[in-house]
Amino acid sequence: MISSATLTLSNIPHAPSPTTVSALSEPKSTPSSPAVSEPSSPTEPQPRRLKSSPQLNRWSRARAIRSGRKLGRPVQRPADEMSFSNSSLGVIIDNNNSDGSEVQTPSPRGDDGECVTDVTTAGGKSIYMVSDGTGWTAEHSVNAALGQFEHCLVDRACAVNTHLFSGIDDVDRLMEIIGQAAKEGAMVVYTLADPSIAETARQACELWGVTSLDVLGPITESIASHLGVSPSGLPRWAPGRKVSLGEDYFRRIEAIEFTIKQDDGALPQNLHNADIVLAGVSRTGKTPLSIYLAQKGYKVANVPIVMNIELPKSLFEVDPEKVFALTINPIVLQTIRRARAKSLGFSDDIRSNYCEMDHVKLELEFAGKIFQQNPIWPVIEVTGKAIEETAAIVLRLYHDRKNRCSMPRISRRY
Amino acid sequence: MISSATLTLSNIPHAPSPTTVSALSEPKSTPSSPAVSEPSSPTEPQPRRLKSSPQLNRWSRARAIRSGRKLGRPVQRPADEMSFSNSSLGVIIDNNNSDGSEVQTPSPRGDDGECVTDVTTAGGKSIYMVSDGTGWTAEHSVNAALGQFEHCLVDRACAVNTHLFSGIDDVDRLMEIIGQAAKEGAMVVYTLADPSIAETARQACELWGVTSLDVLGPITESIASHLGVSPSGLPRWAPGRKVSLGEDYFRRIEAIEFTIKQDDGALPQNLHNADIVLAGVSRTGKTPLSIYLAQKGYKVANVPIVMNIELPKSLFEVDPEKVFALTINPIVLQTIRRARAKSLGFSDDIRSNYCEMDHVKLELEFAGKIFQQNPIWPVIEVTGKAIEETAAIVLRLYHDRKNRCSMPRISRRY
Repeated sequence: MISSATLTLSNIPHAPSPTTVSALSEPKSTPSSPAVSEPSSPTEPQPRRLKSSPQLNRWSRARAIRSGRKLGRPVQRPADEMSFSNSSLGVIIDNNNSDGSEVQTPSPRGDDGECVTDVTTAGGKSIYMVSDGTGWTAEHSVNAALGQFEHCLVDRACAVNTHLFSGIDDVDRLMEIIGQAAKEGAMVVYTLADPSIAETARQACELWGVTSLDVLGPITESIASHLGVSPSGLPRWAPGRKVSLGEDYFRRIEAIEFTIKQDDGALPQNLHNADIVLAGVSRTGKTPLSIYLAQKGYKVANVPIVMNIELPKSLFEVDPEKVFALTINPIVLQTIRRARAKSLGFSDDIRSNYCEMDHVKLELEFAGKIFQQNPIWPVIEVTGKAIEETAAIVLRLYHDRKNRCSMPRISRRY
Repeated sequence: MISSATLTLSNIPHAPSPTTVSALSEPKSTPSSPAVSEPSSPTEPQPRRLKSSPQLNRWSRARAIRSGRKLGRPVQRPADEMSFSNSSLGVIIDNNNSDGSEVQTPSPRGDDGECVTDVTTAGGKSIYMVSDGTGWTAEHSVNAALGQFEHCLVDRACAVNTHLFSGIDDVDRLMEIIGQAAKEGAMVVYTLADPSIAETARQACELWGVTSLDVLGPITESIASHLGVSPSGLPRWAPGRKVSLGEDYFRRIEAIEFTIKQDDGALPQNLHNADIVLAGVSRTGKTPLSIYLAQKGYKVANVPIVMNIELPKSLFEVDPEKVFALTINPIVLQTIRRARAKSLGFSDDIRSNYCEMDHVKLELEFAGKIFQQNPIWPVIEVTGKAIEETAAIVLRLYHDRKNRCSMPRISRRY
């Protein structure tokens, strides 16, 4: 939970709170005197108005250095070079236990003078996502909205870099991030449970000329009105909140474990325990789809259809209303299989059988015949669909069938 | 994509479009003459102002019938009783292929006179989530916002029922749903890519006295301003949209498949191929956490720590910066293990060893010693944390370590 005790709304923009103890050991990076007090047009590039600080300079330098080192494997340094402090990771401390069992981690900043970053920010617009929780809501919303700009993103005509700052639990860090956004000309999307902190963020963005959006506030307010109940104003995992690992939690875990065990036709004798059974030829996305559905609490089994190999008897014995057939365009399937065969280093023999168009078509026909013989199974065309979309279709059908006579919908009780 | 051709904004509220061909074979359920033209206060219960229709009556009857049949297993009916039409499932038709390869499915409404519903709506407030796509964004946002009302939801003082209507691709169905929301006194949260349709939804809600919120519009507009690019106005999976199964797609699938194969200590020789390695005793949530991270594109391996069983050598040979240790409060662990032992039907022998407090504590100490010997591994306390939260912590640390010298963040390029 963000401590706002030392901060009033009026003193932020002109003199960002120096009184809260920052989790950072470095000098403050909050801009000390933003030059504008009027919001500027968000469509215009943000001029670099802010005074820089040693911290900001250091990050800027870091971006400029770009050692070119392979990002996936940061160089290992001997343990004695590392300092064990979570100074810049204050957010990681466990909320529930103050007995010293918090996260222990070396400082994320190296002492070797070299810096690496995940993403090059050059040449793209930045979106900062700031959250006092996990940040997944902000990320999900931004990702969905970016779907509206695919026409531009596809060919990198308007490259976008997103930066997620999660667990932001003090106002100093919040101001520091907004200051950095102002400097980079980034926009800020935030989910901050405490309405006064959210308002603080809004005002700071406005005064520093940063385009900003509160993702959580409006929906929370609407629901509050609808329920006639005030929101708690606490981040979901704040110490004061009751966390219940209820039925839902255990159901999800059970679903995930079940689904992993059943993957790729394993344990066909357990199909009757599945909520949903998926059937399709190799590379129709059965595994990722199963896992996606399992995350939502459904026990999923998937059964591969392989040319001339008999399917498990149990597939035809289970409730046919829970079986979903997947099919795909043969040309797309061939492309996917070729990529797969290459990445797995299949031998030429296997590869030709797996990827050749004649074989691909025959196998799809073989599957198609099985589907025709089981007309209750819906046949879902997955060509060009993302996992999320196929999952939405499966669940819509699944619930429609369970939810006879009501408007088609997926319902859940909180 | 919603066809808005037959609909103008001005003619909806008073005479909901009768011209668009509805996907439903039943008579229209759109209210024909809402009595109010002023938005009413959203905090007040919505009076039942709307004329009912045969369709609405049928749904209402369905809710009243409630046969008590076990919901998970709808009664099987012989195939010849089923009609193969996707009349009420128009949204399921594949967007990319008009060659007849769409979803085939029996009608979701039974002919046996009995109806089942997923959720009893009695005794709770309803939230309708309406989307022209998957609806996951609306669901995610509502779920996040409901986190602000846990104090009330925990003891069911303010029970909430959510209803997801995804793939709503014609205005008639949209109006039908809003009409039903008005009748039920539900609020409506929507993600509709076409701004004019979103505006239509807003106006219809306003005029029918339904509290409503556009979840996608504001963030899309903000990003449009920031990028200086107009949004496409097309749902993500609309026919006109370029769908690219790019690097990201294949990376995610690869990550999921890798993670499944490595689950529970399998294939320790592959640990060096993982992006992230999780270590902890049984029931610290390694598997669901691994899967959650895999969905985000990270290849995860998890290694169980079992009392007096030697850990794989490879765990100590991989880059220690990618290993994350999980720990948990012993009392909570015992509770979770007891539930687990019960659900798996463990014998008394195994159960006592697995669940006894002495054993639980010793095993956690055993793990703790290993963690101490490997001080670069961050130790994450998972007690009371949801999978999403632990995942956020792991990824924050993971990216901080890769992203040395920049502000701690998780970055991504679109």
